[in-house]
Amino acid sequence: MNKDSAVVVFSGGQDSTTCLFWTLKHFRHVRAISFLYGQKHQKEVEIARKIAEKASVPFDIMTIPFISSLSKNALTDSTITMDQEKPQDNLPNTFVPGRNLFFLSIAAVYALEHGCDNIITGVSQTDFSGYPDCRDSFIRSLNVTLNLALEHQFVIHTPLMWLDKADTWAMADQLGVFDLVRTETLTCYNGIRGDGCGHCPACKLRKKGLEEYLKRKNTK
Amino acid sequence: MNKDSAVVVFSGGQDSTTCLFWTLKHFRHVRAISFLYGQKHQKEVEIARKIAEKASVPFDIMTIPFISSLSKNALTDSTITMDQEKPQDNLPNTFVPGRNLFFLSIAAVYALEHGCDNIITGVSQTDFSGYPDCRDSFIRSLNVTLNLALEHQFVIHTPLMWLDKADTWAMADQLGVFDLVRTETLTCYNGIRGDGCGHCPACKLRKKGLEEYLKRKNTK
Repeated sequence: MNKDSAVVVFSGGQDSTTCLFWTLKHFRHVRAISFLYGQKHQKEVEIARKIAEKASVPFDIMTIPFISSLSKNALTDSTITMDQEKPQDNLPNTFVPGRNLFFLSIAAVYALEHGCDNIITGVSQTDFSGYPDCRDSFIRSLNVTLNLALEHQFVIHTPLMWLDKADTWAMADQLGVFDLVRTETLTCYNGIRGDGCGHCPACKLRKKGLEEYLKRKNTK
Repeated sequence: MNKDSAVVVFSGGQDSTTCLFWTLKHFRHVRAISFLYGQKHQKEVEIARKIAEKASVPFDIMTIPFISSLSKNALTDSTITMDQEKPQDNLPNTFVPGRNLFFLSIAAVYALEHGCDNIITGVSQTDFSGYPDCRDSFIRSLNVTLNLALEHQFVIHTPLMWLDKADTWAMADQLGVFDLVRTETLTCYNGIRGDGCGHCPACKLRKKGLEEYLKRKNTK
């Protein structure tokens, strides 16, 4: 068992980039993987590659177009207008059913092949937008399922699970990558790097967290 | 919740064909899906399609080549000679890591999209050849994981879990499809339909079960 090596599920966004540097602090051997799954903004994978290169982390891309063919949603289908807020009785239409299930399952097989026992994901229950596959209970259940499926003891780490976006900015700052995360990552649903378009749900959440963190920092 | 509708994970082999007819007996609306995952014997999918047509069951094919790119194994890589028996200290090299995990996860998203709450798979712990993802504990854990991931209550049914191959032949006979299963399904690792090549591990297991069942039947 290699406790020193880890695979990061990495999209080049604020959360997973912060997780990448968290992992580099805690593990000796770190790899990162991104997914091409038919998302509208495929350039996030190029952004991920550049950040991984800068961090000297081996980087692989998994191509899994079946995810977008399985169901209709606003992240992979350009003809659907994105929900700006979570509808009262339903999941937001930006939910891609099974996305984290597939990302983490593929990460586990990849980890097995590369001799890594640790898997890191940036999911958070705090700002989870109603996505069931960002919740802690799902991650814990999946961890058991993956260990049974592959007869191997993996540990899934979720450093952001109980943090809000302001806490995540604080973590990036503590890790010395505040500026990198602020200017080089892509979180925006409209595909604009750094501070983004400013008005999509992802930008609003990121901006609110940033303002809270900066206020908190300046009043210390 | 639609307790009447079910999706069968269907490969056109003995086990999943028996499960298809079991499902037709127990559920009103039945669909079947097969997977193209880079297996050497892609014609199993054509065989599955023919059986589904004969049974008047809607049939879909999912193309997921990433499974064969994730790891080296004898079912997807022609340069590897198949293990004839389970090695003492290791899994047989016919194990495709995560295969049932991916098949059942995709089946769940497919079921969600088609309004089906039941998923049927022909895995069996009795003759499991050392594959961890055929065990009952894995299936139960996965069922919980899928329900959490998709926020929906699915039930995974495994009619063959505790049956050996002779019992499975008995079930096909009770369902009135003994001849169909014997002549039209493909279980053989060398891609020969019906009784197969006779000497690969899958054929040996199938043949042993058939002989046991016929003996049992004739001594009644």
